[in-house]
Amino acid sequence: MTTETNRQWRLASRPVGLVDEKNFRWAEESAPSPADGQVLVRTLYLSMDPTQRGWMARDTYLPAVAIDAVMRSSGGGRVVESRHPDFAAGDLVIGMVGWQDYAVLPGVGPSAPMKVPAGVALPLALSTLGITGLTAYFGLLDVGRPAAGETVVVSGAAGATGSVAAQIAKIKGCHTIGIAGGKDKCAWLTGEAGLDAAIDYKSEDVGARLRELCPKGIDVYFDNVGGDILDRALARLARRGRIVLCGGISQYDAEVPVGPKNYLNLIVQRGRMEGFLITDYASRFGEGIRDLAGWVAEGKLKDRVDVQEGLENAPRTLQRLFTGQNVGKQLLHVAD
Amino acid sequence: MTTETNRQWRLASRPVGLVDEKNFRWAEESAPSPADGQVLVRTLYLSMDPTQRGWMARDTYLPAVAIDAVMRSSGGGRVVESRHPDFAAGDLVIGMVGWQDYAVLPGVGPSAPMKVPAGVALPLALSTLGITGLTAYFGLLDVGRPAAGETVVVSGAAGATGSVAAQIAKIKGCHTIGIAGGKDKCAWLTGEAGLDAAIDYKSEDVGARLRELCPKGIDVYFDNVGGDILDRALARLARRGRIVLCGGISQYDAEVPVGPKNYLNLIVQRGRMEGFLITDYASRFGEGIRDLAGWVAEGKLKDRVDVQEGLENAPRTLQRLFTGQNVGKQLLHVAD
Repeated sequence: MTTETNRQWRLASRPVGLVDEKNFRWAEESAPSPADGQVLVRTLYLSMDPTQRGWMARDTYLPAVAIDAVMRSSGGGRVVESRHPDFAAGDLVIGMVGWQDYAVLPGVGPSAPMKVPAGVALPLALSTLGITGLTAYFGLLDVGRPAAGETVVVSGAAGATGSVAAQIAKIKGCHTIGIAGGKDKCAWLTGEAGLDAAIDYKSEDVGARLRELCPKGIDVYFDNVGGDILDRALARLARRGRIVLCGGISQYDAEVPVGPKNYLNLIVQRGRMEGFLITDYASRFGEGIRDLAGWVAEGKLKDRVDVQEGLENAPRTLQRLFTGQNVGKQLLHVAD
Repeated sequence: MTTETNRQWRLASRPVGLVDEKNFRWAEESAPSPADGQVLVRTLYLSMDPTQRGWMARDTYLPAVAIDAVMRSSGGGRVVESRHPDFAAGDLVIGMVGWQDYAVLPGVGPSAPMKVPAGVALPLALSTLGITGLTAYFGLLDVGRPAAGETVVVSGAAGATGSVAAQIAKIKGCHTIGIAGGKDKCAWLTGEAGLDAAIDYKSEDVGARLRELCPKGIDVYFDNVGGDILDRALARLARRGRIVLCGGISQYDAEVPVGPKNYLNLIVQRGRMEGFLITDYASRFGEGIRDLAGWVAEGKLKDRVDVQEGLENAPRTLQRLFTGQNVGKQLLHVAD
């Protein structure tokens, strides 16, 4: 039982255009108590993900967040009180804590938190070794199926999922090119992340650079952005090329999204464009985490997180994803 | 050796918008003579296909037709002189004869004509038992992979390929819905072709009708048209739905094609959109023709052709595909 205040951000309105602080309402109430079979979690970090804008706006693969409900979000925290035998006070866990200081979660079932393996810091568990890294892993390997020697292009390559997908492609022996916005992000991609090349979409002609860097075409395009860059990649698709649809962040703010006008090149090149959701791979998460953790330990896969501070900054921190300010996984540090 | 006149349509200019008679130039020359290893074919029927507009406009999976070259077209004819041992005068063949009375074709290799099986009329060999039927067969079954009981929707369902694809879906035990323009086409689909339902996109709300007719969503959407109808199908896609990209006739005339703005529903539904070219299936044509001919013989698959008359009408006949005037396979009868 805690007598602390539970600070929260609740959804006030559905976003039009860029997500805005005005879409949320600040609330404070007493921290809740867990019932039998539940655990009380103190939020330490919040994960910021592009898909959260979809949850704010409409029913998607999950129902929309209800107006006046606490904003839905995954995050990491510490169990402060457990009334379920699988958890004890002090356990570090990952779960759907929402934008608040304290969350009550069930001890079992699909909404139960997952324990963080010993020795893994919460930021790593929320990025490369969490849903973000697993999304890159299964999306690239299971949907894209790149073979060694093939050409892989990743958009949003300095972002959370893109940076992991691009590095996995390189680990698998592919000629790997990342597309990102800005010199610093591109320098990180060809430097620390070890890619073969990077394209700065803010200052370079993406179509011309793809022609130059992918003389045999693109075998796998891992897309996080949609819009014009997707069209440039479609135009450069190799015979039997695969487009992995992970996201379309350039279109999430749009009133009417722009579709890929070069989609008929899928006929000419006998190509495939396919979407996926990481939740479908739950039974194989162990396999993914084993590989990812191994690559991190070997130094082949660099984990990059962008940590902002303070629950009061949650709306502004989510906004960073849509203005391209984040480099790597966007987290918000809420408490120590 | 023939001393006949060889009437021809040659490409004069590349199309802008709807294909036009002005894009062609009428020419007359002496019929050619075959060299050693070649055959001379008298054109009897020309096949009119949407892809021909692409050949007129730009390099696609084939190089663009050169300005001043005879318009490229498949068709059926009779061998009038053979200088290759595999052919004899009188043989009925299918091949790339072009828009002209007489064509010289090689006796072997990928450009050689194919002999029409005994007892098969040329119109049938150019429609259901030709490339048109094979495109429907391999596109639906190999790319779309419908299972019995699944819901299949076909656009351009009264067209050459669509009418075959829709009937195959029905033969395979699928709940099958055709989309076509006009009451007559729709009546044919639910009548003679035996589909479960038809949607008249000219007078009905396609989205509303798809919701009504596909309560469990669309498992396979076989697309010949693109544009708004593709978006309506994407919005109604079932979990793990497949979109077979066969064509996009609504976009072929467009300066800048419209992309499917609902493409991100491929993520939500874990869907796949895939293109194909029938030429990749050449080694399996026998298998396809065997099934198609069997279904035709059993009366399960209705062959419907729309035959126009006279080589002089070739440009206007091609135009019919883009104005939706044809029902079934569009052919042009050139000579008896």
